[in-house]
Amino acid sequence: MNIAVAQSGGPTVAINASLMGVFEQALKSVEIDKVYGSLNGIEGIINQNLVVLNDLVKGEEDIELIKTTPSTVLGSCRYKMPSPDDKPEVYEKIVECFKKHNIGAFFYIGGNDSMDTTDKLSKYTMQNGIDVKVIGIPKTIDNDLCYTDHTPGFGSAAKYLATTMQEIVRDSAVYDLKSVTVVEIMGRHAGWLTASSGVLHANGETAPHLIYLPESEFSAEKFLNDVRAQLEIRNSVIVAVSEGIKLDDASYRSGKVDNFGHEYLSGIGKLLENLITEKIGCKVRSIELNVMQRCSSHLSSKTDIEEATLIGSEGVKAALSGETGKMMTFERVSNNPYKIEIGMVDAKLVANAEKVFPCDWITDDGTNITHEAIQYFLPLINGEINIKTKNGMPVHFIIKK
Amino acid sequence: MNIAVAQSGGPTVAINASLMGVFEQALKSVEIDKVYGSLNGIEGIINQNLVVLNDLVKGEEDIELIKTTPSTVLGSCRYKMPSPDDKPEVYEKIVECFKKHNIGAFFYIGGNDSMDTTDKLSKYTMQNGIDVKVIGIPKTIDNDLCYTDHTPGFGSAAKYLATTMQEIVRDSAVYDLKSVTVVEIMGRHAGWLTASSGVLHANGETAPHLIYLPESEFSAEKFLNDVRAQLEIRNSVIVAVSEGIKLDDASYRSGKVDNFGHEYLSGIGKLLENLITEKIGCKVRSIELNVMQRCSSHLSSKTDIEEATLIGSEGVKAALSGETGKMMTFERVSNNPYKIEIGMVDAKLVANAEKVFPCDWITDDGTNITHEAIQYFLPLINGEINIKTKNGMPVHFIIKK
Repeated sequence: MNIAVAQSGGPTVAINASLMGVFEQALKSVEIDKVYGSLNGIEGIINQNLVVLNDLVKGEEDIELIKTTPSTVLGSCRYKMPSPDDKPEVYEKIVECFKKHNIGAFFYIGGNDSMDTTDKLSKYTMQNGIDVKVIGIPKTIDNDLCYTDHTPGFGSAAKYLATTMQEIVRDSAVYDLKSVTVVEIMGRHAGWLTASSGVLHANGETAPHLIYLPESEFSAEKFLNDVRAQLEIRNSVIVAVSEGIKLDDASYRSGKVDNFGHEYLSGIGKLLENLITEKIGCKVRSIELNVMQRCSSHLSSKTDIEEATLIGSEGVKAALSGETGKMMTFERVSNNPYKIEIGMVDAKLVANAEKVFPCDWITDDGTNITHEAIQYFLPLINGEINIKTKNGMPVHFIIKK
Repeated sequence: MNIAVAQSGGPTVAINASLMGVFEQALKSVEIDKVYGSLNGIEGIINQNLVVLNDLVKGEEDIELIKTTPSTVLGSCRYKMPSPDDKPEVYEKIVECFKKHNIGAFFYIGGNDSMDTTDKLSKYTMQNGIDVKVIGIPKTIDNDLCYTDHTPGFGSAAKYLATTMQEIVRDSAVYDLKSVTVVEIMGRHAGWLTASSGVLHANGETAPHLIYLPESEFSAEKFLNDVRAQLEIRNSVIVAVSEGIKLDDASYRSGKVDNFGHEYLSGIGKLLENLITEKIGCKVRSIELNVMQRCSSHLSSKTDIEEATLIGSEGVKAALSGETGKMMTFERVSNNPYKIEIGMVDAKLVANAEKVFPCDWITDDGTNITHEAIQYFLPLINGEINIKTKNGMPVHFIIKK
């Protein structure tokens, strides 16, 4: 039989490593002949827009190059899977594609929305007696998927963040004057990525001095008092703020929503910058780390890339052993030495749910993270990868579509 | 005798390498005893706020760590040097500090404003028979200093930019829809850094598809037509725009100016994003690369760090041979193989001047750079440096002030 694999949702730097995990395991499996790559997520299956990875990926060098290429080499989508009752023709097209290409298993690398697709598709195939296993491979820099210790892509985003925040700390400290630097960090309504900037404390940095997460209530008045108190004890105050913090005044939100009804978040950093200018009046700068948080493959965590590869491979093993409708998971067995095991969970349980940052990992004053949280984050950012370069710039693998 | 060194103006990732160049050469020079570091630029001399680098920098390991630490380990300032006629007391304080600490040479690492200080101070010492040599060591990510082929700090900023732009290109290409990504790049009124993003073409990237520099006239109407034309031929259009481009409508400017009367520039990316949303209506995102352009030492160019060290060392040699009031320069002897020589020029000539990007290195349609420009940039971003890490994060050298 053949298999198919697709990538969905927002990019990460580890999603191509999971793709190669699937591909490498397929090469090792006598049951599997070809590996089809579906272009632009499930839309590639629906529209029969496929590539044969065995033809495009020539040997070990390409595999390693793809693992260190950011974003999705197969493209992505934000397609919301309808129910079979509403649009049976979508499912019929998918099954037609599966049958035509003798596809016996489909792997969907994505976040919680992709797990919704994994769940719906696996139920449809089971209920209609179609022998195609459907397995979800987690990915998101937001780390907000339930039932897994963490998600592939998160560790590298956290490593980018720690490195960049530390460099911003140095940059912000040069002048002999009071200043505040507000760094706006992704993560939607979960504070994992913003909180992870606290790992700097493990290397003796006092920054970030204030961390604001969506999991805590945010009050502009308390924020200004927190900043004033920090300005009393140091020149350069560094604030890490999640794009998803809840303001009483919702006027900063863009109001735009994506296909899943999620709001596009951004602008909170600028808003807080203006607030400090108006109410405190010291030098202030806001920095939006933007998509660099999810595409800076040159700062990938070795642990993350290796784990992303592993969980892709394990997904293939799970499908071959008859599993379907599951998402693969990480279980943390121990922290020191760091050790994980691979598990799985019903994709239905993960779909459309969100795992938030634990409240007891936030310090009592609500403005930083605990030692326990730091211990959770540290193994995930561990290790550096070697990037192939040409002319002083990284080399990426590109599939011409 | 002893010497003193200070760092001034906006940070770069190479300014500490120049500091170590001065320090290493001083250690080799029998004429020089102690190396004083002046905290926060020339203000440290005025206020006698000095450290002894020989005490703080313990051996080769510290030297290498400082070379890869971003920003200024001695702090910086934006102090505008008055004329001796206006404020003789400032010069008296400086001379008092020089005499007290037996300082026979002063090295000022900075941009064009710092060369103004170098010029004024060297003239004062000469005119008053004070035997203190004053030498300027160039630094700026803007590459806008006259009389030098390029400036230390620029190559690393360009390398950060090339790497990050390429990752943004991958990130922007994931969805099967038309989109524009506008990347706002530093450089004040000179287009060097923005133009340098064109080096991606040397590795086969079509992006950036449109490059807008302050050296070309900018018309919103032509810009929209350029973008529309690009959207006809590709899905994902990448625009590199300098923070300093001149709009007819100056309303986007903040109006804030620094001590030298320079405007704080920023916001052009967001302005163009809004323009595209309004007039074209496709998906559009703007990204401000902000201070990461000048502080991302983990992406330093090996060439840049080595040259920054060299030019610091050569500054010490120049002072010992009796030079004063000069800025050290790079002269490019050949491009292939890349070879530079060190020269010098009157600091007065560099002070308060600005070297702009050559118009004949801009393509005829005004939206990209020529092959010759790419050949100029490529050697400057060459080579990667090894960063010392702990817990998966870079280690920086910090002087406790």
